[in-house]
Amino acid sequence: EGGAAAAAAAAARVNNNHNQPVPEIRKDAVHNRWVIFSPARSTRPSDFKSKSNPTPQSSDHLLNCPFCLGNEHLCAPEIFRVHPPDSPTDWKLRVIQNLYPALSRDLPLQDHQEASSGNTKLGGFGFHDVVIESPVHSVQLVDLSPVQLGDVLLAYKKRIQQLQSYASVRYVQVFKNHGASAGASLSHSHSQIIALPVVPPAASARIDCMKQYFEQTGKCKLCEIQADNLLINESAHFISIVPFAATFPFEIWIIPRDHSSHFHELDNDKAIDLGGLLKLLLRKISLQLNNPPFNFMIHTSPFHFNPSSLSYTHWFLQIVPQLTTVGGFEIATGCYINPIFPEDAAKVLREVQLS
Amino acid sequence: EGGAAAAAAAAARVNNNHNQPVPEIRKDAVHNRWVIFSPARSTRPSDFKSKSNPTPQSSDHLLNCPFCLGNEHLCAPEIFRVHPPDSPTDWKLRVIQNLYPALSRDLPLQDHQEASSGNTKLGGFGFHDVVIESPVHSVQLVDLSPVQLGDVLLAYKKRIQQLQSYASVRYVQVFKNHGASAGASLSHSHSQIIALPVVPPAASARIDCMKQYFEQTGKCKLCEIQADNLLINESAHFISIVPFAATFPFEIWIIPRDHSSHFHELDNDKAIDLGGLLKLLLRKISLQLNNPPFNFMIHTSPFHFNPSSLSYTHWFLQIVPQLTTVGGFEIATGCYINPIFPEDAAKVLREVQLS
Ligand SMILES: Nc1ncnc2c1ncn2[C@@H]1O[C@H](COP(=O)(O)OP(=O)(O)O[C@H]2O[C@H](CO)[C@@H](O)[C@H](O)[C@H]2O)[C@@H](O)[C@H]1O
Ligand SMILES: Nc1ncnc2c1ncn2[C@@H]1O[C@H](COP(=O)(O)OP(=O)(O)O[C@H]2O[C@H](CO)[C@@H](O)[C@H](O)[C@H]2O)[C@@H](O)[C@H]1O
Repeated sequence: EGGAAAAAAAAARVNNNHNQPVPEIRKDAVHNRWVIFSPARSTRPSDFKSKSNPTPQSSDHLLNCPFCLGNEHLCAPEIFRVHPPDSPTDWKLRVIQNLYPALSRDLPLQDHQEASSGNTKLGGFGFHDVVIESPVHSVQLVDLSPVQLGDVLLAYKKRIQQLQSYASVRYVQVFKNHGASAGASLSHSHSQIIALPVVPPAASARIDCMKQYFEQTGKCKLCEIQADNLLINESAHFISIVPFAATFPFEIWIIPRDHSSHFHELDNDKAIDLGGLLKLLLRKISLQLNNPPFNFMIHTSPFHFNPSSLSYTHWFLQIVPQLTTVGGFEIATGCYINPIFPEDAAKVLREVQLS
Repeated sequence: EGGAAAAAAAAARVNNNHNQPVPEIRKDAVHNRWVIFSPARSTRPSDFKSKSNPTPQSSDHLLNCPFCLGNEHLCAPEIFRVHPPDSPTDWKLRVIQNLYPALSRDLPLQDHQEASSGNTKLGGFGFHDVVIESPVHSVQLVDLSPVQLGDVLLAYKKRIQQLQSYASVRYVQVFKNHGASAGASLSHSHSQIIALPVVPPAASARIDCMKQYFEQTGKCKLCEIQADNLLINESAHFISIVPFAATFPFEIWIIPRDHSSHFHELDNDKAIDLGGLLKLLLRKISLQLNNPPFNFMIHTSPFHFNPSSLSYTHWFLQIVPQLTTVGGFEIATGCYINPIFPEDAAKVLREVQLS
């Protein structure tokens, strides 16, 4: 059974409990984005064969996988490694350069150039790194302990702090692709870090939106968030919710309780706490949604940022199970159709029984 | 061989001819969107099995497919049909209601309501229709003649004109999903029309962007576009290009030569001319990219629109072959990574030999 089928089944279960399945259009205040909630969509038929999760090629990964222990020579240069406590020559995670980088660390940063017809371009300066989360091919993120997951998060932090020293890096995006339909090209557990010379459009839009709220209310939108029936789980320092206008079915946000603009303010205690909550949520989506492909993304604030902006920007981590395929409507309009109401998805995820 | 593999092969061929494959960041003036062009990305390996195009379930579609001739009773109500010239009882295309609509035509239009925490919602009022492009299950859009394709385009026009009579419809999105990885759930050739009570975010952004250009130059951005080495093919009334900052590899825009804000200004002659160009381009991508899944979308202007805006909005049709899978970076940043430079993609598409 593929992810899409699992999602449809989950949606059908959920929507059965929904008394008035009329569509609704919601705008979330963090992204200024309209999302259409349409329970009727979840029952539509398909005559394409159900897309099974593509499985990795079973072959000799120990020989070929560049991310496996012993294959370090197949990789682009290492940036740093984290050792297991007892063996200072081994590694339990590595941060390396991406061998096929989207941006180049060797280019001079050029100013924006006007090309013909008012089109603008600039040189592709930036950094593109890979975080290998385990030396063992078969270990996935969900298999790590809260402390080990904390180590992964602290490796992101350390690398972000290094990147902050480059004056021309404006924004750092940490993200993970798990499974082929979430975009992954390699199955060995890893995530990526891209440092950009511009603030990307979605981050600017988010910051503008939070600024607007702050100007109206004097408060940070994410500090004020009412979890209520959107709550999934809480930990000492974080809450997890399905956002009010979730773009994707079963989308999850993990939000620090205390106001914090930059992910790299995370301290060791909070990293382990976040590791525990992340593990719990990954277990829940795996169990409830049949081990779906997923992405997670850390939404932080730009570097070299106007200090007055720090009062209204608040980082969070977004998890998106990939259960549906985007179509022409979403590409054209930027408006998504979600067949599952957030409060229904939150209820399902809140109540998952972990054995 | 799957679409992704075909894209990689095409990219490798193309990039071989590229002397300096250094990455570049471009911003297009119509969407105000950064895109990273990174030829190095096209050679990265994958250990997932190549995703083959899911084929439709071969079974008895004549019995089950709601869009086949003779199965009209399986469909939601018809809005109108187009007859073949010689047989007034048959149909060659039908516009019907979507049986699983994203929006409901029966809801009262409510004003925006503030929910808790500054979140906004409104009732899901709108229209969601399906255009069945042929009565025959095996006929795809590319198989139609220019005149028949013109009929499909004129059916969009007629339906848009009907929808314009509703004061609460603000924007109409016409789109097509072909193939499962382009989002299609049914394989019988069809497209869709969604009428929205709001102007969607991507359309607002586009219009703002074109307005800004107009305020600076007094000209319409799309009237001014320099096709140059981005040109693919031209017809009497249209040009087709790969846009300067194409979001997706081999993305195509078909742009009317004469200034026109709304798609539904299309007359019969231009519809046939556009049908011919669309057919040519669909044949080219099918041949060059191994019959890939694709979407096309018509970008028009809102209804009930400030007349002064008409001087800078210019409709166009966008075709997107689905060759890559979006990952966490794109979801988070709204910034896309395209491994193929637009001028290289344009050259390939310009030079495709049609037998
Ligand atoms: N020997 C080696 N040493 C170092 N690095 C190596 C390596 N061999 C491979 N790599 C790199 O490892 C990375 C693996 O990343 P993922 O599997 O998360 O997805 P990928 O970046 O390929 O593309 C997905 O994510 C991006 C960003 O979201 C999308 O643009 C894209 O469409 C989607 O498929 C690749 O970026 C690759 O370049
Ligand atoms: N008997 C019947 N009578 C009338 N209509 C019928 C019908 N049986 C099915 N339909 C409708 O026919 C349509 C077929 O459309 P497509 O195959 O283009 O993709 P779909 O809309 O399912 O979803 C894709 O496109 C949308 C919009 O882009 C994305 O939200 C989604 O994720 C993606 O899979 C469906 O919308 C379905 O509701």
